[in-house]
Amino acid sequence: MSKDKFALGIDYGTESGRAVLVRVRDGKLLASAVVPYPDGVIDERLPGGPKLEPDWALQNPLDYLYVLEKAVPKALKEAKVKAEEVIGIGTDFTASSPMPVKSDGTPLSALPKFRKTPHAYVKLWKHHAAQPEANRINEAGRDRNEEFIRIYGGKYSSEWFFSKLLQVLDEAPGVYDTMDRFIEAGDWLVWQLTGHEKRNTCTAGYKGMWVKGQGFPSSDFFRTLHPRMENVIEEKVGLDYFPLGSSAGGLTAEWAKKTGLKEATPVATGNVDAHVAVPACGVIEPGSLVMIMGTSICHMLLGREKQMVEGMCGTVEDGIVPGLWGYEAGQSAVGDIFAWFFEHAVPAYVHQEARQTKVPFQVVLEKGAAALKPGESGLLALDWWNGNRSVLVDVDLTGVLLGMTLATRAEEIYRALIEATAFGTRTIIEAFEAKGITVSELVACGGLPEKNRLLMQIYADVTGREIKLADPLQTCSALGAAMHGAVAAGAAAGGYDSIFAAARKMAHVQKLTFKPRAECHAVYDKLYAEYHTLHDYFGRGANDVMKRMKNLKRESSI
Amino acid sequence: MSKDKFALGIDYGTESGRAVLVRVRDGKLLASAVVPYPDGVIDERLPGGPKLEPDWALQNPLDYLYVLEKAVPKALKEAKVKAEEVIGIGTDFTASSPMPVKSDGTPLSALPKFRKTPHAYVKLWKHHAAQPEANRINEAGRDRNEEFIRIYGGKYSSEWFFSKLLQVLDEAPGVYDTMDRFIEAGDWLVWQLTGHEKRNTCTAGYKGMWVKGQGFPSSDFFRTLHPRMENVIEEKVGLDYFPLGSSAGGLTAEWAKKTGLKEATPVATGNVDAHVAVPACGVIEPGSLVMIMGTSICHMLLGREKQMVEGMCGTVEDGIVPGLWGYEAGQSAVGDIFAWFFEHAVPAYVHQEARQTKVPFQVVLEKGAAALKPGESGLLALDWWNGNRSVLVDVDLTGVLLGMTLATRAEEIYRALIEATAFGTRTIIEAFEAKGITVSELVACGGLPEKNRLLMQIYADVTGREIKLADPLQTCSALGAAMHGAVAAGAAAGGYDSIFAAARKMAHVQKLTFKPRAECHAVYDKLYAEYHTLHDYFGRGANDVMKRMKNLKRESSI
Repeated sequence: MSKDKFALGIDYGTESGRAVLVRVRDGKLLASAVVPYPDGVIDERLPGGPKLEPDWALQNPLDYLYVLEKAVPKALKEAKVKAEEVIGIGTDFTASSPMPVKSDGTPLSALPKFRKTPHAYVKLWKHHAAQPEANRINEAGRDRNEEFIRIYGGKYSSEWFFSKLLQVLDEAPGVYDTMDRFIEAGDWLVWQLTGHEKRNTCTAGYKGMWVKGQGFPSSDFFRTLHPRMENVIEEKVGLDYFPLGSSAGGLTAEWAKKTGLKEATPVATGNVDAHVAVPACGVIEPGSLVMIMGTSICHMLLGREKQMVEGMCGTVEDGIVPGLWGYEAGQSAVGDIFAWFFEHAVPAYVHQEARQTKVPFQVVLEKGAAALKPGESGLLALDWWNGNRSVLVDVDLTGVLLGMTLATRAEEIYRALIEATAFGTRTIIEAFEAKGITVSELVACGGLPEKNRLLMQIYADVTGREIKLADPLQTCSALGAAMHGAVAAGAAAGGYDSIFAAARKMAHVQKLTFKPRAECHAVYDKLYAEYHTLHDYFGRGANDVMKRMKNLKRESSI
Repeated sequence: MSKDKFALGIDYGTESGRAVLVRVRDGKLLASAVVPYPDGVIDERLPGGPKLEPDWALQNPLDYLYVLEKAVPKALKEAKVKAEEVIGIGTDFTASSPMPVKSDGTPLSALPKFRKTPHAYVKLWKHHAAQPEANRINEAGRDRNEEFIRIYGGKYSSEWFFSKLLQVLDEAPGVYDTMDRFIEAGDWLVWQLTGHEKRNTCTAGYKGMWVKGQGFPSSDFFRTLHPRMENVIEEKVGLDYFPLGSSAGGLTAEWAKKTGLKEATPVATGNVDAHVAVPACGVIEPGSLVMIMGTSICHMLLGREKQMVEGMCGTVEDGIVPGLWGYEAGQSAVGDIFAWFFEHAVPAYVHQEARQTKVPFQVVLEKGAAALKPGESGLLALDWWNGNRSVLVDVDLTGVLLGMTLATRAEEIYRALIEATAFGTRTIIEAFEAKGITVSELVACGGLPEKNRLLMQIYADVTGREIKLADPLQTCSALGAAMHGAVAAGAAAGGYDSIFAAARKMAHVQKLTFKPRAECHAVYDKLYAEYHTLHDYFGRGANDVMKRMKNLKRESSI
């Protein structure tokens, strides 16, 4: 019996990076080291530089290297694993988080000349200031009937690659001129580790208009956006994309030294945090919807064929695992809505009970909400506190709460908010099923399932589907990254030859599952019908009051 | 120059009675004595008797006499007024608050046999347990096209006289058999004071189906309700009704002794608390809408002719002042909605700021809300926490809040709730104006205007009308009662010959008024249009989600 081998996964989140060491034969997690980004999310003022406008969100790419230097040695030490036992390295990243760099990979933000130039930094996924550019892209895409309009459920987001690149060109042409490459931070990181710029198909497919076998939209299209963008692909973006799990090359001597890993250890091509979680949840076949549940929910599903499902964030061949279509949908606020409620609408009597019973006030609310039966609150909400991602793809929609009486209590509102997010998930499931793509079970990972068991039961009751929990719940992206590292290493080196083989051994779910209860599901069918009616009334143009209210809000602040 | 004369007003509210002494020549308030009812509102258990069902609300009529004995001498003493200087007595009462009595006026609840019988007590205005009876009355009324259906805006309330009488007959036929009279508490009180049963036209007109010149519905109608009710008017109710301000007789020797007043002092016929407030606000002509603003709002308006305005609580000739049609409309929850918000949805940061700045938390909210411009919150609410009285007359409607984002704050919600109640008032104004009944200004009284100046300004801005404040604000019903006492006394005795003459001298408004600001009114026109659309969508049958949610709530509690 051979000695155990290990894979390293590095998960780059919004606030921090996490390195995990995982045993290849069974996925056992041996160590997990989290390192926050020194500059964090830069959304108010560039350190030592100018104040940012609203909706900006930047990062300093050097922070990603800092994570490597700190977290990897820490994880190795904690796991008591030697460098030669680590057979592969995988990473995952938020996306789209692109940045301008020179031809040698130097970030423009690291050049003295651009250190105080916001457009020289990474535009984090949640940078929302490129909406005018996204509008132009969508207009041109629709006019020209471009394929990407269909891939992205009818709308290309302001959060994505070309919206952000066009914003650079619009607002900082000097940065545009100076950059040799505009690249996803995840791909840039792999470049740093290996010395090779080998971009991945997943980020390109979901965020960058790239289509397998077809490449990018034509230079005609890009010229329509901006005359200087005609040859943007050749000049700044690149034509070659590499599949998930393939090796981008071996670790450089420099980074071997800095991390304590062995030189030439295979490094997998980059990946996206939500997408890499799917095989880590053990999902490598159609039928199981993976929900990465946190401040928002990403819904990931595999399909045997391409279908235009309403409101997808993206539909990409091989986008999650090879040979299958990867569907990504999402709800833009879930945990965030509860956090809003906790901050802005929890009354004194809840805090008082929490003090008296010496539990967090959230526990008081959950206990009160759990004691209610479906329908008992008389409340119904639309979960649009941060717009609606799927299926309506509309950032200007807002939240609704209906049914209040003089007897309505805080725990009833809390339950109604949970239920509303569950109805949001059910809406996405029904959009899949309307196109013949079956969703037979749900697999959850992320921070929310651990914190909120009532929520999981409500999701099961509302959707009428069993929910399994990934194991581990919270580090499943990092596990997925490590699994891709093991695939990059290959079976001959003690890893695996495919993500399928890796998932069968390394991915696990918990014994605890949440089963739908028939009597609750029957009531939720009725409540969902009400939700659906309001969803369509406010979301599909019958009454655009939410948009008009937002406009009045904007006008009033002038 | 003759010596000053005084009038006594006694205002019977929900929790207490108030006696005021007022100088007749100018309405100056000299004393005000409040005495709570010893048994208060009996809505859980009859003292020493059985537990009550939900929706019951009773009172002990002996408590009203207790108020006379305590409050009147106290007010006389405080005002340093002698009995012979008091020229007239007026009263007002909540309505409809009827009770069963014997032919000598003895309340059934005072008989040992019935002391533990809930149906023997006063059914307070907010007793809501007669809904099945109200439904039967409405069904029969609509089938037979009875006049009262039109008078009451399309619906006879479960709160009113015949609903409550029919409930007695349904559930306690022994009480029905034993009672010689079923009488409004306000009329019963005047009977006690004078020894004469002289019922007033106001309560009969607004609550009891009585119409000037026509009387009551026919015995055919009452037989349809219940065979034993065929002759109910003759047997239990009576045919004679006396106008407001007329003298019901002089004070009896017994009550002169108990109160310290002079025997034979004229006592005005009974009146209703909201109605008596109108002349006390100085309103004796069409055009000025009186708002009695507290937990709810009563809207009172005078008109030269009879119009069927949607959703009126009642439309009664001479119902407020002689010679004019008195319109009554209302919003079932206003102050109550803010009280709900204060209790159930004000977060920790508001309480914290209140502690730090040493002010009540409501002041923190008001300050924050006042700093917002119309439209700035992006929020819109429907003010239906306790159903909608006017113009939809539907108790099963519920509250809505729309427009929430992750940045929504408590003071924004508070302002949206205030605005929603203002939109509710504007809806009532527009219903009047749709029938050609002009509303050129608003006059406010009650507890709310004193507490909440922001609210008054918002009402002015939303309605586009100047709002005057009655002086006094909070005791205007008691003042109105005293004014009717002065009219019962008559000019020859130092009083007045009409309520018009009394109002010109005794009623006053404050110098402070709230004027609409054009720029705010323009924004509120837009917000009101949105309110109106949602009002009709949820309130007029396009989407009966509120009723279905209420049904689900009821089912879930079975």
